[in-house]
Amino acid sequence: MDAVCARQTFGGVVRQPFDTVMSGSRPGRALAAPTIMGGVNLERAANSSFVGLPMGAIAQGSASLSRAPKVQQPSAVATPPRPFVEAQPLPDLREASVLDSGLTGELGSGLKGLHTGKFTVQATQPIMYSVEECEDLLNPSNMALLSGIVPNTFPPQVAPYTRSAGKQLRRLLVVDENWYRLHGAKLDKYLEHHRVESKIIQLPFCEANKSFDLVFEVAQQIEDFKLHRRREPLIAIGGGVCLDVVGLAANLYRRNTPVIKIPTTLMAVVDASIGVKTAVNFHNKKNKLGTYCPPLGVFYDRAFLKTLDDRHLSNGAAEILKMAAIKDAPLFHMLEQHSAQLIASRFQTPAARLVLRRSIQGMLEELECNLYEHVLTRVVDYGHTFSPEIEMAALETNDELLHGEAVNIDMALTTEIAHRRGYITADHKRRVFAIMRALRLPFWHASVTPKLLIKGLRDMTIARDGLQRVPLMSGIGGARFVNNLSDDEVFAAAAALQHYAQSLECPEAIDGLSPFFDMDHFPSPAMLAN
Amino acid sequence: MDAVCARQTFGGVVRQPFDTVMSGSRPGRALAAPTIMGGVNLERAANSSFVGLPMGAIAQGSASLSRAPKVQQPSAVATPPRPFVEAQPLPDLREASVLDSGLTGELGSGLKGLHTGKFTVQATQPIMYSVEECEDLLNPSNMALLSGIVPNTFPPQVAPYTRSAGKQLRRLLVVDENWYRLHGAKLDKYLEHHRVESKIIQLPFCEANKSFDLVFEVAQQIEDFKLHRRREPLIAIGGGVCLDVVGLAANLYRRNTPVIKIPTTLMAVVDASIGVKTAVNFHNKKNKLGTYCPPLGVFYDRAFLKTLDDRHLSNGAAEILKMAAIKDAPLFHMLEQHSAQLIASRFQTPAARLVLRRSIQGMLEELECNLYEHVLTRVVDYGHTFSPEIEMAALETNDELLHGEAVNIDMALTTEIAHRRGYITADHKRRVFAIMRALRLPFWHASVTPKLLIKGLRDMTIARDGLQRVPLMSGIGGARFVNNLSDDEVFAAAAALQHYAQSLECPEAIDGLSPFFDMDHFPSPAMLAN
Repeated sequence: MDAVCARQTFGGVVRQPFDTVMSGSRPGRALAAPTIMGGVNLERAANSSFVGLPMGAIAQGSASLSRAPKVQQPSAVATPPRPFVEAQPLPDLREASVLDSGLTGELGSGLKGLHTGKFTVQATQPIMYSVEECEDLLNPSNMALLSGIVPNTFPPQVAPYTRSAGKQLRRLLVVDENWYRLHGAKLDKYLEHHRVESKIIQLPFCEANKSFDLVFEVAQQIEDFKLHRRREPLIAIGGGVCLDVVGLAANLYRRNTPVIKIPTTLMAVVDASIGVKTAVNFHNKKNKLGTYCPPLGVFYDRAFLKTLDDRHLSNGAAEILKMAAIKDAPLFHMLEQHSAQLIASRFQTPAARLVLRRSIQGMLEELECNLYEHVLTRVVDYGHTFSPEIEMAALETNDELLHGEAVNIDMALTTEIAHRRGYITADHKRRVFAIMRALRLPFWHASVTPKLLIKGLRDMTIARDGLQRVPLMSGIGGARFVNNLSDDEVFAAAAALQHYAQSLECPEAIDGLSPFFDMDHFPSPAMLAN
Repeated sequence: MDAVCARQTFGGVVRQPFDTVMSGSRPGRALAAPTIMGGVNLERAANSSFVGLPMGAIAQGSASLSRAPKVQQPSAVATPPRPFVEAQPLPDLREASVLDSGLTGELGSGLKGLHTGKFTVQATQPIMYSVEECEDLLNPSNMALLSGIVPNTFPPQVAPYTRSAGKQLRRLLVVDENWYRLHGAKLDKYLEHHRVESKIIQLPFCEANKSFDLVFEVAQQIEDFKLHRRREPLIAIGGGVCLDVVGLAANLYRRNTPVIKIPTTLMAVVDASIGVKTAVNFHNKKNKLGTYCPPLGVFYDRAFLKTLDDRHLSNGAAEILKMAAIKDAPLFHMLEQHSAQLIASRFQTPAARLVLRRSIQGMLEELECNLYEHVLTRVVDYGHTFSPEIEMAALETNDELLHGEAVNIDMALTTEIAHRRGYITADHKRRVFAIMRALRLPFWHASVTPKLLIKGLRDMTIARDGLQRVPLMSGIGGARFVNNLSDDEVFAAAAALQHYAQSLECPEAIDGLSPFFDMDHFPSPAMLAN
């Protein structure tokens, strides 16, 4: 029988002592008293009773006499209670520590594996990061870009900038080259003002380039810069493609290099930057390779939206409409009142600020409890059933669709379907379409065919483990999942939608929504066989 | 004021209700009673009171009347209590559900972000997997290889095989081509016997090939096979390189494709397969790109070790010696008694079984509490300070070192250092070296130079956030971390070790360990400048 050891969990709960059965007995092992430690995750604490002993003093005795009391080994398992976990610094291990652990049974399966040959590992990985609205990020008085990493915290946390005497700040920034063309001079001045030893990597991030080649390029730059990944956050500045790619490179480089994401497009602010997904396309499959990897932190500055064109603003607004339509009726009302003005003002009005905040809040509420997408029935999949196929098909044409545009076509189609099923009224549908029109989002694309829609639905059904799980609007701000969409139902709604989209091009028809669909304008289901 | 909602955590603890402040009021929201649910992570439960309602019935009323009671949204945050979490099936969502969530404040920062513009995401990712010893894995009576995935569990869990009438079993296997040459016929027969629709991909996994090219190849095969990643585990069979590469491909493909790892080398059984690390080399840097990704499960069969040559057995044994030397004195005693016989019997004796189990137990105890390596002071880094440089340098010569061989040279060096510091006695050192000799592990390699050793130490100091954190033996089975290794100390120990290694080649010197080192055999520290 060996020492009784206690495991310490995050919330200050001391585990039950458990039996430790050692196959070989070790005499003289001291009994370790259970201790409650306050930190998030502590390094193996140096046992202070041994600090200051002359080197070698410990090893002079025989093995059985030199045993130190068992150092408490904190578990990686952390249960963040609400309110927040304060990430705490770990003790510094500048002094040598002595560990004499032996087998302790500190494992999911205890020591049972020695007898059964089955060992179970059981732990949890804590995740904590913030998305923060900033004003005037590139103004030298704003210190956000100089943020560092709190030493010895897990997960790593953003450290507010503090001037350390004599410490040279080093930063590697990977930025979208288009953004740099517009804001680079200001960024350069900022870094110069603060005397940051920095390197700015400009890359041409776009959907067509979103491949592992860019990931390797970023990884090589991290290597060349000799980024100190425990002290110096990587900084990514750009749209969704940039943040997805740099996020993946940072995740892969030494298995985790913390990255601060600065979204510069509306799509990135409300969608791409704030979750934990990273990705690149693979063999023409959208986002097929990627990881789940939380950012160190996200800072967004609405000022960057001033330089976006209307189309990219509308693109991001589609994801805001998504959250409004299936989760947030007050946000829907705001879009009804402000859509045109949001675009015209480049999201610089007070109303725009709240629209962004509500959209981010709603999105994060949906993501937080399902960060790894183990639950496949997700309202945030609204507009994301048919759209991946539509977006990739359009990419092959001369008339590319942005992500949010493809999402909008999907949302328009499912709005039509929801209406036909009676989940939303004609008035609800009219209101949704009115917002889409105010946001100048497309209702249709020439690449949409029955075959494409059905392929999208079938692929997504496989991805969603055999059920369609298509979210449909249920009233304004509500959602309902369906698993029984029929091909005919999709075709009929699509035909009506195509007809409606065509009618929009004739001003005299713009305010009326035809309840009929014209199969002349749409291939019949029978054509699918070809 | 909106509904008071309760969050439900893993262990059945109901969170404190918290205030939810809605910016826009929504009438008619029902109060949701706190509910304790038993599952690990539940899908959005279908609200049974709505099941069976005619389609459209819900949406007939106005928005304010159609509100469903808030469906409990379980948190992704899971605190696994000990003993085990039972992974539980989630309710099946074949029936449509209605969600009317609105903003709920179910976020780390509650609803504060709406007012402050700072949103905090807080969650934990649960991890649970097993490493299991199997007998005769390729015998058709052994069902382990037919294991599936328990539906709707997070993290995904291995499902024991059960015959489902009419269900065609599909499996994609990625195997090391050398292993397949020896065991492929038996594997083919096994799959044929069980009528598994399978595809076996043989690839030439080796250190020199360990790059992203192989990852892309595996990802493409997953794509082509149309692997159903929620039902059909990917199976990887091979040594450490194979499992690292396939593990990375599986992690990347759709951000997580569960993989069952079958280690076939001793190194993979005791080290590479059982943790959560995946990796490939990048621009001649060992394991520079990778992820932390738990396997679905690990099955090891000692029978596969029968076909290994002595060198590969010794290679794996080095990692066993590592665990013994710094953590597990009884295991050390077993190695003293059995080393030669372990190799000669190809680890087929009862003693070998226990040696493997103790080694795995010790390794997993050290990994479980530090799966993401946030703690940098790790006893499992024993033998891993200088060895990465040594291994990569040797790879460039005609006399390659296997991973465990490089680790052994590092361990021999640090054993010498520990002895010189008085942390272990001369007798301890003699015993360590005796095991190394019995295991026929190398003490030296021609590519080791002072420059290389110092580069290894400096690089590792950077990787370990500015401190050396070199684990040294402290008696048998104990460890001590030091941060003050001097170059001269390393050179002196290395010179002594080189001298010892040379003396081993003269049989008359083999039993005596020279306390002197001969600087003629070793470049002086001054030569470092060149």
